[in-house]
Amino acid sequence: MEEAKIIDGAPLISLTPFTVRFHEVDLLNVMWHGHYLKLFEDGREDFGRRHGLSYMDVFKHGYLTPVVDIHCSYKKSLGYADQGIIETTFIPQVAAKLIFNYRLYLASTKETLATGTSTQVFLSKESRELQLTAPDFFNDWKNRTTAQG
Amino acid sequence: MEEAKIIDGAPLISLTPFTVRFHEVDLLNVMWHGHYLKLFEDGREDFGRRHGLSYMDVFKHGYLTPVVDIHCSYKKSLGYADQGIIETTFIPQVAAKLIFNYRLYLASTKETLATGTSTQVFLSKESRELQLTAPDFFNDWKNRTTAQG
Amino acid sequence: MEEAKIIDGAPLISLTPFTVRFHEVDLLNVMWHGHYLKLFEDGREDFGRRHGLSYMDVFKHGYLTPVVDIHCSYKKSLGYADQGIIETTFIPQVAAKLIFNYRLYLASTKETLATGTSTQVFLSKESRELQLTAPDFFNDWKNRTTAQG
Amino acid sequence: MEEAKIIDGAPLISLTPFTVRFHEVDLLNVMWHGHYLKLFEDGREDFGRRHGLSYMDVFKHGYLTPVVDIHCSYKKSLGYADQGIIETTFIPQVAAKLIFNYRLYLASTKETLATGTSTQVFLSKESRELQLTAPDFFNDWKNRTTAQG
Repeated sequence: MEEAKIIDGAPLISLTPFTVRFHEVDLLNVMWHGHYLKLFEDGREDFGRRHGLSYMDVFKHGYLTPVVDIHCSYKKSLGYADQGIIETTFIPQVAAKLIFNYRLYLASTKETLATGTSTQVFLSKESRELQLTAPDFFNDWKNRTTAQG
Repeated sequence: MEEAKIIDGAPLISLTPFTVRFHEVDLLNVMWHGHYLKLFEDGREDFGRRHGLSYMDVFKHGYLTPVVDIHCSYKKSLGYADQGIIETTFIPQVAAKLIFNYRLYLASTKETLATGTSTQVFLSKESRELQLTAPDFFNDWKNRTTAQG
Repeated sequence: MEEAKIIDGAPLISLTPFTVRFHEVDLLNVMWHGHYLKLFEDGREDFGRRHGLSYMDVFKHGYLTPVVDIHCSYKKSLGYADQGIIETTFIPQVAAKLIFNYRLYLASTKETLATGTSTQVFLSKESRELQLTAPDFFNDWKNRTTAQG
Repeated sequence: MEEAKIIDGAPLISLTPFTVRFHEVDLLNVMWHGHYLKLFEDGREDFGRRHGLSYMDVFKHGYLTPVVDIHCSYKKSLGYADQGIIETTFIPQVAAKLIFNYRLYLASTKETLATGTSTQVFLSKESRELQLTAPDFFNDWKNRTTAQG
């Protein structure tokens, strides 16, 4: 897991609640490990809506940001109707990449359930070509949101 | 469930095997009822590939065929690793509709597990407008495939 | 769709908001029809939590309530990030069945997107046997919640 | 990605075909990245059935093997109806862990689409306690299957 590197400002974080659905647990009352990637996406989308970096915001500027790498480490299982929080943290990069860390924890005890990291790249919406430098709109966004007071 | 109406020819049927995946059963070792719609779709797609009426075939002719109605009746539950067959039957219509019946049964005993019906309509790919009469390509397909010898 | 039959009291309803997730739409920006069964379940669970008839409430009394029949009629498609409401209505029955009607509508315009009905039966948790008469706890619940003032 | 370490014998591999379903692609005709974990599971299960290490085999010996870590690196996207192969390779460990590598590739061109690794641990079915040494049945299996001639 990459470390949040913002020193003078607070790291950019969003907290998104979730409840485990009945069809998401298996016969041992354990949420299937693959469903965590939906939670990561929910956290990432929620982060985007709160901070102006949603899929649609990025799309409007002419870019797509496919996930090219994902990692998840599972600490404790989740059962039916468990209520948790997805903590999504933006990890600023020099490279033309979007990296988020995730921490899932139980709403009641704050116990960590899983941690993970996703890496996205920028593609031109038109050409589908990989962008080797970060798009201007993203640099602007980064300057705006991670600036110190 | 609509009745197959082909009298002089055999009804158009496809048989598609499936195996219940671990993440598809709940904590009572019962496949979640919502997953049956994936099986119906698998059956419908398999039917399309075998009989020249796949999503892509329809798309090439300029049409989309969204599902506008679905019904499923559950008889017996499926557990992890159970092996079954999706029997998909084309039900010819006078109206501009695509209707399929489905029967899921256990591969070993042929016992019926569920039955269902889906109804699709034809939309123009360009205008997204509902087609009130069946497209020519579809009438041709129907004549070709349901003709008696 | 069955009609709500409560005459002297108001029908038992719950309203549950939802937002269409990115991975739930297909390449035409249309939410896959199978995902509606997750929304129905979300509505039913939310109804249960609000009115004391959740999966866990039923389970504690020694019963399971599997879905034995489901129907969905699709009126208008949903796209990515669309926000809607699941209206879940309890339809009282004389028979030992649990029937819910669902109406999905756009949060902004109240336009109906889909309607549906689910039927559940009561099984003994221990024997898995079908209950031909409604369990006492359920009759009590029904009397309590649908009684007139 | 861990390296296959079997020197004197061939690495244990299974090849499992798959076809991208319509509801698995998004509005850019790209299979959602989360679905790859279903493919990994399909590959792992198929490996287990072929080599006598399925979920049920492990369960019969009194153990559960939850996934505790997963990683996936995405190279090229998959579209609707694309046909691929899941190559699942068992990576022997000294520690009490089950590690599999995955490579997804296009059936037609053999082009690599994604690679990944999953790590599972052994829990006692009864106590749910983590096993710090590999169970006997698993050591036996390993000796049997990775032995040289």
